[in-house]
Amino acid sequence: MPTEHIVRSYDEDLRKLRDMTARMGGLAERQVADATRALVRRDTELAAEVVQRDVQIDALEREIEAFCVKLLALRQPMAADLRVIIAAMKASNDLERIGDYAANGAKRSIVLASQTSIGSLNGFERMAHLVQENLKAAMDALVNNDAEAARRVWEADEPVDAIYNGIFRELLTFMMEDPRNITAATHMLFIAKNLERIGDHTTNIAERIYYAVRGDSLPDERPKADQSAFAVVRPAGE
Amino acid sequence: MPTEHIVRSYDEDLRKLRDMTARMGGLAERQVADATRALVRRDTELAAEVVQRDVQIDALEREIEAFCVKLLALRQPMAADLRVIIAAMKASNDLERIGDYAANGAKRSIVLASQTSIGSLNGFERMAHLVQENLKAAMDALVNNDAEAARRVWEADEPVDAIYNGIFRELLTFMMEDPRNITAATHMLFIAKNLERIGDHTTNIAERIYYAVRGDSLPDERPKADQSAFAVVRPAGE
Repeated sequence: MPTEHIVRSYDEDLRKLRDMTARMGGLAERQVADATRALVRRDTELAAEVVQRDVQIDALEREIEAFCVKLLALRQPMAADLRVIIAAMKASNDLERIGDYAANGAKRSIVLASQTSIGSLNGFERMAHLVQENLKAAMDALVNNDAEAARRVWEADEPVDAIYNGIFRELLTFMMEDPRNITAATHMLFIAKNLERIGDHTTNIAERIYYAVRGDSLPDERPKADQSAFAVVRPAGE
Repeated sequence: MPTEHIVRSYDEDLRKLRDMTARMGGLAERQVADATRALVRRDTELAAEVVQRDVQIDALEREIEAFCVKLLALRQPMAADLRVIIAAMKASNDLERIGDYAANGAKRSIVLASQTSIGSLNGFERMAHLVQENLKAAMDALVNNDAEAARRVWEADEPVDAIYNGIFRELLTFMMEDPRNITAATHMLFIAKNLERIGDHTTNIAERIYYAVRGDSLPDERPKADQSAFAVVRPAGE
């Protein structure tokens, strides 16, 4: 029965799309984890690996996009299937950016390994840990088609922003203490910003999943706590 | 003749999509221009306007996405038309990010207006000017369906990266001169990074246009000059 054959193989296509996206998500998670480990352990070899591995994520994005275009052209999907395909295509963009941020952090950790003093890394470890957990939860929500789990990920980014604000102020103070800290602290600032952006992209992915499963969007404004764009820190004694 | 009617109205749909994207691009250009003007003139009112206007760009992104999904579902487009729709959807993501970066810069310029010394703005003005020109050229390439113009935009980002590297080093030196410069210089660093990211998103848009018109992609690696992730700057006398 050719019709049934086509239907079954379409389901297989959608499963394949989901698998590709989950694989890309797993790779992105690993990049974030390894970039953080490289920073904390001053492991420049691992950092270099993270930088090199980024091409794999880029390649997966192109594969997913090409596969989505093929599905759109050949299958001419409607409603729910169309949403799943568009969500996968957009999630792959977010994962590609997450990969870029991890690789950029790894590059900076190579410079940091040559600096004597780089300040406290506690905030970074907590932030990276939360970001990875959210990313993992987002990919689980994708695999399980779970809109409620996606909503929880979407709501869980606020503590990430709060840690980022703390790190921002801490690093400015660290720079003010000694000008020799400035190069290191600047790279640390960008690594913290990268982690904050990874958190934002993770919430984007959660929004895509929610939309794909439910067909409607989460509210425009999610709980946000990043106030660093307005931060003013003064040198001690001023 | 109903067939002809359908065909004509499909062309109209695609023209409408192009118009929406061009309008979004125009708004994004204006946000970048006004954010830069607000920074240079210390005009906090204009900066606040830029921050508020960002919702318009976000709304346009959602409109474009919804319209693309409608076109995909109702028109079931093939080949070239499918590419145009996907390119518009992805370009609208990039424009939304450009809007976010402009608004973030505007927020920071409000803090900077309260700082006594913020260092030289020459590099910023040059960088912002180049970034705006490239964005304008990208939107022209979109309106004119011009793949060669899109390729030129894609190649034109290198000088933006070069100015960014210069600003990065300048600001680190400015911080080392006096700890009271650190808050201002940190916000300036992020504004410069925002402009550099706006340049990157503009090249993404150029890639989408090239792909939509030609059906094949530009090479993986474009000329890049951002080396700031590896930069080390030492305090004078060290």
